[in-house]
Amino acid sequence: MLTRIDHIGIACHDLDATVEFYTSTYGFTNAHFEVNEEQGVRECMLKINDTGDGAASYLQLIEPIREDSAVAKWLAKNGEGVHHIAFGTDGDVVEEAAGIADKGVRVLYDAPRGGSMGSLINFLHPKDCHGVLTELVQKRRGTT
Amino acid sequence: MLTRIDHIGIACHDLDATVEFYTSTYGFTNAHFEVNEEQGVRECMLKINDTGDGAASYLQLIEPIREDSAVAKWLAKNGEGVHHIAFGTDGDVVEEAAGIADKGVRVLYDAPRGGSMGSLINFLHPKDCHGVLTELVQKRRGTT
Repeated sequence: MLTRIDHIGIACHDLDATVEFYTSTYGFTNAHFEVNEEQGVRECMLKINDTGDGAASYLQLIEPIREDSAVAKWLAKNGEGVHHIAFGTDGDVVEEAAGIADKGVRVLYDAPRGGSMGSLINFLHPKDCHGVLTELVQKRRGTT
Repeated sequence: MLTRIDHIGIACHDLDATVEFYTSTYGFTNAHFEVNEEQGVRECMLKINDTGDGAASYLQLIEPIREDSAVAKWLAKNGEGVHHIAFGTDGDVVEEAAGIADKGVRVLYDAPRGGSMGSLINFLHPKDCHGVLTELVQKRRGTT
């Protein structure tokens, strides 16, 4: 079951400047940086609040590290802004994606890939989701 | 202080079809419908999870009811997708907006207006927020 808004993914040109904006303007302080080579991005997870399922909701600020990454292409077309939204499951992302695929929504990866903070993720095609690139997230046990 | 992701605002052409998509595809069931004449929209708040500050996070699905509404113009330009994100404050939206304005971010309304489910809201200019139209939300006491 999808039990939370796991994060909002925001694409930016300059990660450090964007993190500085979000922390200084709003006072968000809980920041986790990492590089996802597979996705071709450098990112910061800014924790905003705990969620009722024992996890948390984040802003995920994303800067491309390669010109041929999906996020770089998206930024070139759209400029900075909300790139995707992500729902967290309390179950297994493989089963969650399979159940959604059965309803006619295209799932982008054949098998889940590695997401932020050790999570397992998959994506749903935005054209099947009323224009919204949608991510499914399964946290590893014990991580928030 | 901003204590939660209050909602993600998603613009759509057909509210009923979009609510049907989100409820049947993901199993979200807690739906609240209303019309906001001032904003020129018909909307559905779909509750996704409780938040650690005693409130909740929602998807806000928005359909314009007037061709001259801001959302209708946005849809004509961008198509369906994420229109804005909203942070909830545990304090007063007037003070929250004033504090953010002091940091050089343009606030769109001189005084807060009425938002979903009896809330008070204001917006921040997307050009001052790395491309993200950002809403501030103050819930009325006792509402989630």
